[in-house]
Amino acid sequence: MENYFSSDFKLGVLGGGQLGRMLLAETQKFDVHTCILDSSKDAPCAPYCNEFFIGNLLDYNDVYRFGKKVDVLTIEIEHVNIKALYKLEEEGVKVYPQPSVIETIQHKGKQKDFYKAKNIPTSPHLRFNSLAELKEANLTEFPFVWKSAQFGYDGMGVKIVRSTDDINNLPDTECITEELIPFKNELAVIVARNADGKVKTYPVVEMEFHPEANQVEYVICPARISDEVAAKARRVAMDVANAFKHVGLLAVEMFQTENDDIIINEVAPRTHNSGHYSIEASHTSQFEQHLRTILNLPLGNTDSKLAGIMVNLVGAEGYTGDVVYENITEILKIDGVTPHIYGKKTTKPFRKMGHVTIVNKDINIARKTAELVKNTVKVISK
Amino acid sequence: MENYFSSDFKLGVLGGGQLGRMLLAETQKFDVHTCILDSSKDAPCAPYCNEFFIGNLLDYNDVYRFGKKVDVLTIEIEHVNIKALYKLEEEGVKVYPQPSVIETIQHKGKQKDFYKAKNIPTSPHLRFNSLAELKEANLTEFPFVWKSAQFGYDGMGVKIVRSTDDINNLPDTECITEELIPFKNELAVIVARNADGKVKTYPVVEMEFHPEANQVEYVICPARISDEVAAKARRVAMDVANAFKHVGLLAVEMFQTENDDIIINEVAPRTHNSGHYSIEASHTSQFEQHLRTILNLPLGNTDSKLAGIMVNLVGAEGYTGDVVYENITEILKIDGVTPHIYGKKTTKPFRKMGHVTIVNKDINIARKTAELVKNTVKVISK
Repeated sequence: MENYFSSDFKLGVLGGGQLGRMLLAETQKFDVHTCILDSSKDAPCAPYCNEFFIGNLLDYNDVYRFGKKVDVLTIEIEHVNIKALYKLEEEGVKVYPQPSVIETIQHKGKQKDFYKAKNIPTSPHLRFNSLAELKEANLTEFPFVWKSAQFGYDGMGVKIVRSTDDINNLPDTECITEELIPFKNELAVIVARNADGKVKTYPVVEMEFHPEANQVEYVICPARISDEVAAKARRVAMDVANAFKHVGLLAVEMFQTENDDIIINEVAPRTHNSGHYSIEASHTSQFEQHLRTILNLPLGNTDSKLAGIMVNLVGAEGYTGDVVYENITEILKIDGVTPHIYGKKTTKPFRKMGHVTIVNKDINIARKTAELVKNTVKVISK
Repeated sequence: MENYFSSDFKLGVLGGGQLGRMLLAETQKFDVHTCILDSSKDAPCAPYCNEFFIGNLLDYNDVYRFGKKVDVLTIEIEHVNIKALYKLEEEGVKVYPQPSVIETIQHKGKQKDFYKAKNIPTSPHLRFNSLAELKEANLTEFPFVWKSAQFGYDGMGVKIVRSTDDINNLPDTECITEELIPFKNELAVIVARNADGKVKTYPVVEMEFHPEANQVEYVICPARISDEVAAKARRVAMDVANAFKHVGLLAVEMFQTENDDIIINEVAPRTHNSGHYSIEASHTSQFEQHLRTILNLPLGNTDSKLAGIMVNLVGAEGYTGDVVYENITEILKIDGVTPHIYGKKTTKPFRKMGHVTIVNKDINIARKTAELVKNTVKVISK
């Protein structure tokens, strides 16, 4: 067993955003020497890692050279140069998640083909190399879901197509279409799997949407669903991680259909927004757990200490520039409320600038507090 | 209200050890820009603060110059140059805890005089400027407790004196003597007090000693004492913090006497070993709470989520040199166990190298796990 703690061992992370930054709180706790690669010197991780390198995550040479400096390489964003990862893996660097898994996941067409091949429940899909190909297919069953094959993020690159006119307005890019399946709930399960193949799932979380804006307002753990549906969701999530033979954290987003089936929407091969509640609410935060998986350490307890709700702090509309967090002091007055400020110096509309976790024994009290938090804090500019 | 979050505000910390390092996890979370002063470039805080300065904490100029760079100045060790702190305070830097409080506390004679003047229960004491003075006093009631007036730390500078021979072997330094009062339990309470005078106490913790070695083995929260004694201990601790008009965290160490009185042993004007359990077990960790007090933010909930026990990881006898943490992987297999590795590159006998927190709903299970942890991990050298 490698000695990771206060040793010469080096962990590399591709990406220096907030997910990396929250991971660094754990590498600090375990005294694991950590190197970060990011394109911006002002990345949220820059002040808190042992070594910081500037480079383009999509550039072969930048990723390869960085990877050669470390013993284990992981990611905090999946849009990275895959060829460099394969080369590094070949040359003995442990790359977790594995390049093959990241490659499949970062391409929505390949991801959906994988589910089909592995009999993992998901909505039926079609693949197209271009808009012209999609038009030629003459799809007539509306509505359906259109997704850009690559580089989608936080709902970007996803559209509901309701007419031939809508098709004509789509961007010209490789894409998939999916049957639009009505659902009761949008759920997520974080799965942890280490190199020994040990697997644990976190409890199911539920995304509660704003009734009008159709934006996720709250991530709620545990989801307010039946034990049967929760067990099924965790089982399906575990099946996905095992099918990939994934090493690392896998965030599995899914739908609970009208008749209580669970179908996979998509996955992220990393720590995830839907697991932020775990820092305060779980025995093992998703960030510590990710570290445990990629270092092949025993997995931590995924149970919750308390119910947890997460509210994203996104940049308010109409504000761009040097960030100001309004009314943080107000919410600090409330028991069980913890703000996380990501350290991005400038805000713009909808940019993820932080999040707030609310914990309580009673999920209904937590839910009320979450609403109060949501209505109190505002991320604006100077 | 000052805007601390992602702003130009600067927090300064005197000392770059493990207490500072654990504070930095909280300044990272709130994105508070943090500067550290320490005499060693290898200090545990060095990789994790925004700005690191090398200097002598007892040197007037080093402390003064550092203090001029920041808006609020705090400490993680009380052995610092007090004159510089007074000067900085005079010039408008917010110094918390206040120099007058640190000055009283860092001198055991002044600290005891203070308790007497304020009617705070403590054992009777005498003050002596030198060993000669102590000898002249011809003390004959043995045993009694001898304490060096300054620079005591972790039981250093404390002796039980049982005979005139013992007196002759004491170091020649300014000192106090105290009546040795038999006690049932050694307890501690962390008090948080902000500049507005808002005060909260944490639950009482209990130090459990090794039956033979007379060393603290476990810090246990909550203490296994009656509700009446616990309430009394929290009240006395709060009285001490209010008597000092202390701003910051105050760790109050006390004894539960044979007849269930609470008497103060001594206090530390900062985060403390006896509060480490709070990172995993409390709603608000002592480090976040310290930050809240010195920034005059609303105080966080001091209640526990679960029972917590802390085991210190100290350097094993017979090992000096580059540190190796033995069997961390073994304890990571156990639910509710979190190691903290302080990032000190070299170990020596009894040096504090880390700690492990054990949490569980059931304190008896936590206590058994703590023993297993204690018997499993060993801090040795290469």
